Amino acid sequence: MLNQTNLYHEIHEQPDILTRLLHDERATAEALAAEIRKRDICHVVIAARGTSDNAARYAKYLLGAANGLSVGLATPSLFTIYEQPPKFNHALVVGISQSGKSPDIVAVLAEARRQGALTAAITNIPDSDLAQTADFVLDLHAGQEKSVAATKTYTSELAAIALLSVALSGDDEMNRALAQIPQKVARVFSHEEHIAQVAERYRYMQACVTIGRGYNYATAFELSLKLKELTYTVVEPYSSADFLHGPVALVHHGFPVIVFAPSGKMLTEVKAFVETLQGREAEVMVISDDDAALAMGRVGLRLPAGVPEWLSPLTSIVPGQLFAMNLANTRGYDVDQPRGLRKVTETR
Amino acid sequence: MLNQTNLYHEIHEQPDILTRLLHDERATAEALAAEIRKRDICHVVIAARGTSDNAARYAKYLLGAANGLSVGLATPSLFTIYEQPPKFNHALVVGISQSGKSPDIVAVLAEARRQGALTAAITNIPDSDLAQTADFVLDLHAGQEKSVAATKTYTSELAAIALLSVALSGDDEMNRALAQIPQKVARVFSHEEHIAQVAERYRYMQACVTIGRGYNYATAFELSLKLKELTYTVVEPYSSADFLHGPVALVHHGFPVIVFAPSGKMLTEVKAFVETLQGREAEVMVISDDDAALAMGRVGLRLPAGVPEWLSPLTSIVPGQLFAMNLANTRGYDVDQPRGLRKVTETR
Repeated sequence: MLNQTNLYHEIHEQPDILTRLLHDERATAEALAAEIRKRDICHVVIAARGTSDNAARYAKYLLGAANGLSVGLATPSLFTIYEQPPKFNHALVVGISQSGKSPDIVAVLAEARRQGALTAAITNIPDSDLAQTADFVLDLHAGQEKSVAATKTYTSELAAIALLSVALSGDDEMNRALAQIPQKVARVFSHEEHIAQVAERYRYMQACVTIGRGYNYATAFELSLKLKELTYTVVEPYSSADFLHGPVALVHHGFPVIVFAPSGKMLTEVKAFVETLQGREAEVMVISDDDAALAMGRVGLRLPAGVPEWLSPLTSIVPGQLFAMNLANTRGYDVDQPRGLRKVTETR
Repeated sequence: MLNQTNLYHEIHEQPDILTRLLHDERATAEALAAEIRKRDICHVVIAARGTSDNAARYAKYLLGAANGLSVGLATPSLFTIYEQPPKFNHALVVGISQSGKSPDIVAVLAEARRQGALTAAITNIPDSDLAQTADFVLDLHAGQEKSVAATKTYTSELAAIALLSVALSGDDEMNRALAQIPQKVARVFSHEEHIAQVAERYRYMQACVTIGRGYNYATAFELSLKLKELTYTVVEPYSSADFLHGPVALVHHGFPVIVFAPSGKMLTEVKAFVETLQGREAEVMVISDDDAALAMGRVGLRLPAGVPEWLSPLTSIVPGQLFAMNLANTRGYDVDQPRGLRKVTETR
């Protein structure tokens, strides 16, 4: 039974974990924010892989838009294989890793520390190699993640980043919105039965594209990764703008595209993009809290209302997680142990 | 006939264009390098989309490894849709665009200029909006690109980046190696017939993965884009390290994977990765100048010998361009005018 799997439980634990994290990590986030201000830091470099790399994509937008920071993703092989690390002068260097174990991510932080840069780790294992290399450690408080496909550590990584952003901005309204996120995530579970029915339709889908832009660029990448890990479908993630620069040529009658379209500044742009897809006869699934956007899709998955766009990645991935889990179940796959994957991947 | 198409001609023009660019743009590259040194710049932000974004991926590795610069890719929607641009303090901001027209890329450079950052444009149209917004303009000298799928402007973008890197390093050996690139690219054409035969094997391939790591991470992305634009195959690009963090679950008996494996520091790592794929019974195409690596593939495409790894993206994409063109031809598609694409894509 699906509801006896680790994956099912870990998806449903998310509201509680987020509540705990937002409470317990506030002081660390404030201390890190104070140090960033003190050093007048403008540039952030983040090292991460897999699911954690998708959390880094969220940080690029949020720390940029809300905090004026210019965020880049590290190229770990410059530190390991090529042994020619770039200079970090005045940057904050962040490593994100559930296990805190991948040698390449640890190597980036160790070099940053050697250069005297400010370092932070976001990890579920607060005594891991990564944590021990960092000046500040944001603990995910997610408990052991037994399922190979990461779900609860993804949303808690996003929450840790949001907490840092709020601490940097000191904005009360942002703070109040963040505090509501656990209950908003819980609200997605009321649509579970519908999502399980929807998964049936995609039983024989071999390939698709996931689309998100702005804050939800990260969400498109994370759903794509879950679908690959759990259902072995070839799924490519895109920003709607990048997709128009060439890959849109793929789209023919019935080609499946999953579009994240939460309310906010990006919604008009995303709706125009869905119209372009419809002109090419794509089959579109829309994940949104906006009635008009939902009505544009052949299939719609509803998001909870009242979540500001900058926090929407925390709620919008949840129907995606449930969809990927149910699609794997529909196909008779083991959702806890995808073929040939281990929980900790160590790359250099 | 294929050899009467624009795409065929543009692929074959590449050696001449590279020769011209390396000669005519040296002075501009030197002047830009002098300004970077004068301002003691450590951080670079690049704005680009599509093929030009793949050139930016090359810049991330090359300017990092050879010149110690920390390079990040811009998030244009922060400048356009969200209107909350990050601060660029002390960064060099580079826009890369064949047409110099995409409003989002121009917006990033305009904001950088407003903030007083050093700006540069890499473009084929030296009086374009993008060029007029930049302090320095590296002209691609590629002549009009008529085919929708970019080939000659991609390798010339890479060459412009390499020229800047050499100017920054002042390294004579790098300089000599760069000067040899046009003739190395020309040497790929001696394998054209073999590549055309190989394309037959993939007539009915529906999806595949392209792999490159380090300098050739860019090459994996660019081949993926060409295959999508020209052959409508679902192709996802990956670094071998990222691929192991989840997506490797996709691989089953006969799953097609195209691996770039040029000689250099990354080769041992890439060969170990090919062994992992073979353990999962993938069908691997290897693109390499190394005999042992070529022997590991079910199919091998040979690269010219004597190209240092940091310049290998300029040669390794060329068999990929020829493969994509021939595969499109095998499938009866118009290689000059992919369905529903226009040459200039304007996104905001």
